[in-house]
Amino acid sequence: MSFTTVRLGEQGVELLDQRLLPHEERYIVLKTAEEVARAIEEMVVRGAPAIGIAAAMGMAIELARASDAKLAETLTQVGARLRATRPTAVNLSWALERMEGELRSLLAAGAEPDAVREAARTLAQRLHDEDVASCRAIGDVGAPLVPERSIVLTHCNAGGLATAGYGTALGVIRSAAREGRVRDVLVSETRPFLQGSRLTAWELSRDRIPVTLITDSMAGSLMRLGQVDLVVVGADRIAANGDVANKIGTYALAVLAQAHGLPFYVAAPLSTIDFETACGDEIPIEQRAPEEVLHFAGQSIAPEGVKALHPAFDVTPAELVSAVVTERGLVRPPYGPGLARLRNR
Amino acid sequence: MSFTTVRLGEQGVELLDQRLLPHEERYIVLKTAEEVARAIEEMVVRGAPAIGIAAAMGMAIELARASDAKLAETLTQVGARLRATRPTAVNLSWALERMEGELRSLLAAGAEPDAVREAARTLAQRLHDEDVASCRAIGDVGAPLVPERSIVLTHCNAGGLATAGYGTALGVIRSAAREGRVRDVLVSETRPFLQGSRLTAWELSRDRIPVTLITDSMAGSLMRLGQVDLVVVGADRIAANGDVANKIGTYALAVLAQAHGLPFYVAAPLSTIDFETACGDEIPIEQRAPEEVLHFAGQSIAPEGVKALHPAFDVTPAELVSAVVTERGLVRPPYGPGLARLRNR
Repeated sequence: MSFTTVRLGEQGVELLDQRLLPHEERYIVLKTAEEVARAIEEMVVRGAPAIGIAAAMGMAIELARASDAKLAETLTQVGARLRATRPTAVNLSWALERMEGELRSLLAAGAEPDAVREAARTLAQRLHDEDVASCRAIGDVGAPLVPERSIVLTHCNAGGLATAGYGTALGVIRSAAREGRVRDVLVSETRPFLQGSRLTAWELSRDRIPVTLITDSMAGSLMRLGQVDLVVVGADRIAANGDVANKIGTYALAVLAQAHGLPFYVAAPLSTIDFETACGDEIPIEQRAPEEVLHFAGQSIAPEGVKALHPAFDVTPAELVSAVVTERGLVRPPYGPGLARLRNR
Repeated sequence: MSFTTVRLGEQGVELLDQRLLPHEERYIVLKTAEEVARAIEEMVVRGAPAIGIAAAMGMAIELARASDAKLAETLTQVGARLRATRPTAVNLSWALERMEGELRSLLAAGAEPDAVREAARTLAQRLHDEDVASCRAIGDVGAPLVPERSIVLTHCNAGGLATAGYGTALGVIRSAAREGRVRDVLVSETRPFLQGSRLTAWELSRDRIPVTLITDSMAGSLMRLGQVDLVVVGADRIAANGDVANKIGTYALAVLAQAHGLPFYVAAPLSTIDFETACGDEIPIEQRAPEEVLHFAGQSIAPEGVKALHPAFDVTPAELVSAVVTERGLVRPPYGPGLARLRNR
């Protein structure tokens, strides 16, 4: 891939500013955990795996700034701040728990402050590298699900921009495309942030994978016309029973796929599976500012004073999911035992 | 209503420029049929009934300009030009056929040229007034379908702006709201032209009917959460068997409504029913410029060179439609005999 989504540099956490894509590729450097927290809230970086890694890196740079006496306190405060940025993606608390767990053990064992700081950098970098490896494995596991000459529909961006690289849903698509089986990728634009048109179309066209943009409202009709062969999306959180929280609009695509007899696949690393959450109804759904729906590319598109809803995610019940593609293999229904087996593998 | 969608004035055909709503209310005056044809193509005026009336008025003003010797020829040429502007809405050819039929009879009977010109104006105005009356009747017929404290979902704009006034789907909603039974109207923004956010939200908020804007992708999830009670949409063409062509995205809403056990109503005047078209597969679906999906307000929202699809309409099979609401009454399945009975009533 010819871009870097998130990187732990010498000066701080480096992010490709995703709000400016596809027309401008600008990298920004964040020097405090608070700057990282705001970047996550404002969607400079988004995508469940990517924000988990950015948060871990944010913690590492904040520990580098903290005094020796304040390392433990910083760990607690920064963890709470970063965890509060976005509630739905479980990768955020997963990454922070790994950081906090390991670093607290070091502190408890009386490690030198600089050794703790160095361990934080190393672990954040390891989470990054593991995520790239997971995405490539997801691609390998999922590619055989894509038949010859397929038209694949995807929603939002579950690509290299949503992960440390390669992507989850786009990992599957990339691997299948490399094997020559992708005729076209239909990308739904994904209002209101346009992750489909701005990010997924950008990634795929850079990789010379064929891409055709549609509005979110076109998917159902194209399925009816036989112009979709399968659907592959990412996830922000998968409950223990296989219910999937993902970008708003995912649920409708799953219902439409079932109504047309099309497979509906969810691609995600194990870090997206929340075994503490029994089912989708327990997943907190982030409600973002209505202004984001009332405006389009910075311009007001509705009359003054009109209300809007902005749930950023929805829940797709497990029974609409044909398979979950993870780095450790494919899980088919029933998901409860299938996902649990993966964890213990 | 406090606005005029389309009017036959002394100077020409007056249109409220719908491209500029909701932020600017500008009326334009068109002095030739060619100007009217372009206004229809460019969606200055849109909505099946409204473009039929605008076309009829365009024909009337062109006949007023034509020399005595060229009346018959003008009728033919202008009819062909206006009919070609947009292929899906059948109201366009319905209105033009009524104009041509009546005026050709007058010409054949040796009527004075000025009497023919005057008859053209009178008939165009009559089509306008009949449409307002039809919409009010649709409102009366449809209002009882809306239970107490309903949350009604509508798509695109089937309102006063899509008709000569009052609206079809919004006619039902207006009449039900007048009777105090509408808790909220969920309006899907309707990409790419945003008729929902720009037009429907504008109309309803002017009428002080509660309105909440959503993106097109949210409807399914809101249905699952029990936040929608029924769906009411308009139509661009209804085939003899009850299949409905309407704004892209309508079909997906119909599938989603059925999956959640919600009624899905289509409100349209008889002029929208095309008895010559047996089923939806025969309805021509307008493919508009991909640039309209790739840009917003002149601003590119996708990477250079990316393709897009832009079917402006889709077809909802009759089996997904709970009832068709017309000015002559409600039609329930089976639609073939039900619609035929209406015609003969």
